[in-house]
Amino acid sequence: MVNETQHTCSTSSSSKSDGGSSSGSESSKDSSRCSTPVLDADRHERLREKMRRRQDSGDKWFSLEFFPPRTANAAVNLISRFDRMGAGGPLFIDVTWHPAGDPGSDKETSSMIIANTAVNYCGLETILHMTCCNQTKDDITGHLQKAKRLGLKNIMALRGDPVGEEWEEEVDGFNYAVDLVKHIRNEFDDYFDVCVAGYPKGHPEAESYEADLRHLKDKVFAGADFIITQLFFRAETFLKFMKDCQAIGITCPIIPGIFPIQGYHSLRQLVKLSKLEVPQEIKDVIEPIKDNDAAIRSYGVELAVSMCRDLLDSGMVHGLHFYTLNREVATTEVLKRLGLWKEDPRRPLPWAVSAHPKRRVEDVRPIFWASRPKSYIYRTQEWDDFPNGRWGNSSSPAFGELKDYYLFYLKSKSPREELLKMWGEELTGEESVFEVFTCYITGEPNKNGYKVTCMPWNDDPLATETNLLKEQLEKVNRRGILTINSQPNINGKPSTDPIVGWGPSGGYVFQKAYLEFFTSSEIVTALLKVLKKYESRVNYHIVNVKGQNITNAPDLQPNAVTWGIFPGREIIQPTVVDPVSFLYWKDEAFALWIEQWAKLYEEESPSRMIIQYIHDNYYLVNLVDNDFPLENCLWQVVDDTFELLN
Amino acid sequence: MVNETQHTCSTSSSSKSDGGSSSGSESSKDSSRCSTPVLDADRHERLREKMRRRQDSGDKWFSLEFFPPRTANAAVNLISRFDRMGAGGPLFIDVTWHPAGDPGSDKETSSMIIANTAVNYCGLETILHMTCCNQTKDDITGHLQKAKRLGLKNIMALRGDPVGEEWEEEVDGFNYAVDLVKHIRNEFDDYFDVCVAGYPKGHPEAESYEADLRHLKDKVFAGADFIITQLFFRAETFLKFMKDCQAIGITCPIIPGIFPIQGYHSLRQLVKLSKLEVPQEIKDVIEPIKDNDAAIRSYGVELAVSMCRDLLDSGMVHGLHFYTLNREVATTEVLKRLGLWKEDPRRPLPWAVSAHPKRRVEDVRPIFWASRPKSYIYRTQEWDDFPNGRWGNSSSPAFGELKDYYLFYLKSKSPREELLKMWGEELTGEESVFEVFTCYITGEPNKNGYKVTCMPWNDDPLATETNLLKEQLEKVNRRGILTINSQPNINGKPSTDPIVGWGPSGGYVFQKAYLEFFTSSEIVTALLKVLKKYESRVNYHIVNVKGQNITNAPDLQPNAVTWGIFPGREIIQPTVVDPVSFLYWKDEAFALWIEQWAKLYEEESPSRMIIQYIHDNYYLVNLVDNDFPLENCLWQVVDDTFELLN
Repeated sequence: MVNETQHTCSTSSSSKSDGGSSSGSESSKDSSRCSTPVLDADRHERLREKMRRRQDSGDKWFSLEFFPPRTANAAVNLISRFDRMGAGGPLFIDVTWHPAGDPGSDKETSSMIIANTAVNYCGLETILHMTCCNQTKDDITGHLQKAKRLGLKNIMALRGDPVGEEWEEEVDGFNYAVDLVKHIRNEFDDYFDVCVAGYPKGHPEAESYEADLRHLKDKVFAGADFIITQLFFRAETFLKFMKDCQAIGITCPIIPGIFPIQGYHSLRQLVKLSKLEVPQEIKDVIEPIKDNDAAIRSYGVELAVSMCRDLLDSGMVHGLHFYTLNREVATTEVLKRLGLWKEDPRRPLPWAVSAHPKRRVEDVRPIFWASRPKSYIYRTQEWDDFPNGRWGNSSSPAFGELKDYYLFYLKSKSPREELLKMWGEELTGEESVFEVFTCYITGEPNKNGYKVTCMPWNDDPLATETNLLKEQLEKVNRRGILTINSQPNINGKPSTDPIVGWGPSGGYVFQKAYLEFFTSSEIVTALLKVLKKYESRVNYHIVNVKGQNITNAPDLQPNAVTWGIFPGREIIQPTVVDPVSFLYWKDEAFALWIEQWAKLYEEESPSRMIIQYIHDNYYLVNLVDNDFPLENCLWQVVDDTFELLN
Repeated sequence: MVNETQHTCSTSSSSKSDGGSSSGSESSKDSSRCSTPVLDADRHERLREKMRRRQDSGDKWFSLEFFPPRTANAAVNLISRFDRMGAGGPLFIDVTWHPAGDPGSDKETSSMIIANTAVNYCGLETILHMTCCNQTKDDITGHLQKAKRLGLKNIMALRGDPVGEEWEEEVDGFNYAVDLVKHIRNEFDDYFDVCVAGYPKGHPEAESYEADLRHLKDKVFAGADFIITQLFFRAETFLKFMKDCQAIGITCPIIPGIFPIQGYHSLRQLVKLSKLEVPQEIKDVIEPIKDNDAAIRSYGVELAVSMCRDLLDSGMVHGLHFYTLNREVATTEVLKRLGLWKEDPRRPLPWAVSAHPKRRVEDVRPIFWASRPKSYIYRTQEWDDFPNGRWGNSSSPAFGELKDYYLFYLKSKSPREELLKMWGEELTGEESVFEVFTCYITGEPNKNGYKVTCMPWNDDPLATETNLLKEQLEKVNRRGILTINSQPNINGKPSTDPIVGWGPSGGYVFQKAYLEFFTSSEIVTALLKVLKKYESRVNYHIVNVKGQNITNAPDLQPNAVTWGIFPGREIIQPTVVDPVSFLYWKDEAFALWIEQWAKLYEEESPSRMIIQYIHDNYYLVNLVDNDFPLENCLWQVVDDTFELLN
């Protein structure tokens, strides 16, 4: 009987919140209940699908272009900028390709590595530019293979600039962007989304505007998915170009490139490179104020906002592409004034998701790396599945080794001198260390007048959520319970809660209270006595650097400490306290004492020996209060411990 | 660094509630987070391990012996008895092997099929007896292979009775139980747990008591895991036997067989078969009251309780095996008086788990079969994994066909005449059907004075939980919303709650309100208008027999409607509303109208045509209120619908 009935939905009313309907089954969708429930459609779509969906729903979007930096320090700063500007909700970012800068190499400043970082560590949908002139087919294929391997899914196919002044065609070489588009489609089928450049005024080297349009059509027909245009200064320039494209049969999305004027010199340089002409009415405004950067930027923002409004109002434009010049202020200002900047970014999960295609089903992480997400991504980059089978299996060498944790984008952003000011030029005992932890929590300056804005275990300043626990945290750190991670208990707050919310609206989020800290063996001894009283309520793991491990967790099972219940979905439990990965985290957490802190001091110096002592003798402790509907008992546990010691 | 550190737990404090410790990793344990968290250690252990664990923890246990019935009706009754007596918490049951009754066949009364039902449908750990004399090696191997295929894991290896009066050894045949034990170990390695019989007074055919002890030792050394003894009448008989066994090196568990005397004739018959002698002091009591069944049973219970107390008090006995003679009262009484009957059985999951080894990781089911669990087990018996990949995949023919749903243990326990009395000798219109549903809910007699104690969609009487909703259910059934399944919303009750609790103690359980019913297309039209107002809160699936399907569920994803949060574990979500399996359930739910109800009436009769009309024209509706912390809005939805219709 079952097999005689067709299980299709002949009528269907789609849910507003998802824009998805139940009719038809998607063959590509993972069918197991182990797969990530589709919390965030974005994670499962390729860029061209996202674009189409946003266009269909009338939801305007923006994207941001960056170029690779020259120095490692600048790269670290650019990546912080990715994190900050990523919060505004770009549909994608793109990274330009500088043939002179060894763009396909493994250097921390190469186009390839910057794009890799954007995708994998910042979770941004990313287009990598690639030029083809003066390169062999093998070089290009090599670059594309590497991009694919790193999880990059989108290529902007460009010709690139000739080496000399004059353009010379190479026989059998890649002479035009269309050759690269064809090559990508031949060699990689439909794997990449391919973007090509459009020139609203025609390419400066084209015989004519019309001829250039025909070249563009060739690129699209060779397999490009969408077009991003060169910058322009008047909305009508773009709108005419778009109509002309449509007239000759180009139907893919065409995204206008927006250049907010940010300064006199950058404008002149760009105009020179792009061989564009600045309209007289703009020159008339700028020339008189050319030495007043603020005035020019303010004018540039006005001009861009006005032009963008015209474009959006035309009904022909659904997304805007910004040439940021790696700067934040002007572009962010324009986006905010246009209402495109997401003021309250909804988090699909409580941690920032990675954009690597193989991580798109990742929906659970151990809590330990909450403040070092890039390290977690790095150390699990060789995993094949998310979640994979490693949660309960202590025999699997699941985590990447630690040796590379000094990788540039994981290392502290602060130079040694600054760290010494924060963490102490000279430590006089364990108490000086307690003080550093306490100052980090309170935000008060240390006794030399410096604020402690980062710690070896925290990539970023204190989370807003942690502020909820500030008072108690201060008290315990002062007495030698050196906290590095914590979360309050939450008993069913709306998923839209600005501090602890995540996931689609209409849901409820929950947390078990969590506290993780280093502390002395003396305190551990007292703590263990106290924990007997809380045996059935509190789970604990206590471990020292040698791996001596004390726990009451049943059978090495993970303990879910963050979960959410949503309309029409399975339960999501994105954060767990996993006994197995805790032992990997333990190695990292202890090593940070030495690598980030002890090594600031001379060998054999008393300061260094104090840190070394802590590293050798302290325990790393985590506590979970399983009774999330009751008041968090972990502070009581700590209080009882101190009382026992007195 | 990671690889240099040994991840073992050098100190470990085990959690009391689980008896498990974190030290050491179990290689046999499934390592994926998709596997069932170990909610219930029982499900993952073999019988001999369970026995050992109970012995180590000092937790006394009991087991129950049954024989296969003669008729299909008696089989249906016996299976109900399994369900009822299973609730008392036996460690296992065993089913005897009657060579004359075609014990290995597929008949509904065969030993094999009764044991199969006990394991797979009643979720009971089961030992299948098997005798070997007068059978070929191939026959025996065939039986064992079949038992394995059906999920049976334990065999009681017996010789069996000779065909004639005198025993004749067969050359190369199976002459003794030890031959069968050896055969099982040779052919099936360690797959089965093997039990053998012990004779506290010596086997009647043995040369001597001592010789019989040596035979027993041979059986144990050939690979038996434990011993169950023949019945006896005095505790000292067993205790002496046990000491004698230990003296000659038998160290495996020896379980005393307890026979509560239930009547004069059954005692006489058993004594004749077993060639045992009833002690004079017992005869002296029984003979004078031999015609007073109640008095004998009462004496039998006293005697058994007293003897069991002596056995347990000896410190040598950890479990008691009861010869029930397929009767409930006496054994249950003895167990209750001994305090071994579990008064408040803790449910490991909100539905009864199956004991088939391949289902031991099953931790999620669609809610639709909540009242027909045997049908669900039957229709998913070909699945390889629980949970498997079928939740989200509409293209997979995941469910077994319906054609066999009249299988004996699925069919109604009530004969046609009784059903007609309950459901109406003659229906006069749809309203007569509404009345049947209403009477089932209220428990009030129908207008002919009969109580409606079952419905085609419910194997069993109304669940305690459903009583929480009784008043509202009555109201809506009266008006043609014919409910077949429902659950109230629960916002974090303790897992030990007597009505809605499940899983280990210390946890919290949750539910989303659920309502499932048949109703007319007129009501569906109004309901759909009302549901617009509840779009973001209520998920619905509405389908008719032809498969026309109206839903607002996103992307065919399952909606978790029952879940639990426990100390030190991942979230468990044992019940879901799964859009894909709903369409399989729909076929079954509609077919039950015809197969169980319409067919009670003559073809072309008005009564039959009324049911046929409902089958052809009504819709099956399910509603989930996603806002579980708020008051259930589904009654408001139904009220609004009725209001709209007025």
